[in-house]
Amino acid sequence: MGRWEPDARGRLARAALTLYAEQGFEQTTVAEIAARAGLTERTFFRHFTDKREALFDGSEQLPGHLARAVEQAPPDASPLDAVTAALDAMAALVQQNPERARLRNTVVATRAELRERELIKLAETAAAVAGALRARGVPEPAASLAAETGVAVFRVSVARWLAGPGQPDLAGVLHEALASLRDVLATRTRA
Amino acid sequence: MGRWEPDARGRLARAALTLYAEQGFEQTTVAEIAARAGLTERTFFRHFTDKREALFDGSEQLPGHLARAVEQAPPDASPLDAVTAALDAMAALVQQNPERARLRNTVVATRAELRERELIKLAETAAAVAGALRARGVPEPAASLAAETGVAVFRVSVARWLAGPGQPDLAGVLHEALASLRDVLATRTRA
Repeated sequence: MGRWEPDARGRLARAALTLYAEQGFEQTTVAEIAARAGLTERTFFRHFTDKREALFDGSEQLPGHLARAVEQAPPDASPLDAVTAALDAMAALVQQNPERARLRNTVVATRAELRERELIKLAETAAAVAGALRARGVPEPAASLAAETGVAVFRVSVARWLAGPGQPDLAGVLHEALASLRDVLATRTRA
Repeated sequence: MGRWEPDARGRLARAALTLYAEQGFEQTTVAEIAARAGLTERTFFRHFTDKREALFDGSEQLPGHLARAVEQAPPDASPLDAVTAALDAMAALVQQNPERARLRNTVVATRAELRERELIKLAETAAAVAGALRARGVPEPAASLAAETGVAVFRVSVARWLAGPGQPDLAGVLHEALASLRDVLATRTRA
């Protein structure tokens, strides 16, 4: 116990996701996850507070990662450009492992408590992006609206991308969705 | 026990909100809520499964209410017009009792489990609005994007409206936010 295990956290997260997808989130015990990863329950609880957190491993880096993408956008980039840079950064993360994204999405959809956890993580991400936009001089409410809309575009796009195996890459789906949203908002038939 | 109590549900929900705001959500017991409402714990559990649900009383009607607003928009209304009609319907509900909205918002902000519950209720509302848009012939992803964006605009607007006591009515804040979002999405400085 307590000895160093190479990539213990990653092994536990992968074992958890596999077991949740195979036999259900509720039916899976921490003991099974640890056994599948070749580790102990004690090691599991050194890395994760509960089974939910093992499912969302990595998402704690999302707010900072996207805020940096906004910070690093060129000085003359519009708020939309900056949000698009953040969405591209998010897409690149997801596309590092599309199978993991697909499995996680399937598991999250099965339980309200998991959908809730995902939504609050996305809300935290939107808040971080809004803060980075304000730091670029974007006023409110434009900063929060651009950030929240960006996250909404991301959610809708990931769902489409996962649902359609013939889809282009996620970044392409995101850009299509942004264009579609701009059309929707530009088309106002009544005064 | 078991006798009919006039507006028991409403009395319990109001007592719960008052106590959560006065002494904290976690610190409030169902026994205290029932006593404040002049009812029994048993009556509380006939109406609500738990303390969280008492806080969100009424929100179960939101998805259907907004979907109807979309359905009832004129046949020639654009998707944005239909979503604006849904947002106006939502604003009218909130403005029936601004003090309740303010208190609820304050309580929700105190605990992650309450923010999560609120987010999933808003996600359900967005899904209902998207379904009503599809029924009007709006294709995907435009339907989901318009609905999700509408909910994002609503969240940002309510926060602004509650934060600024000198704000105009919520519908006015919503329309300003929609205009601001259209500006943000229209301004793209880079190719």
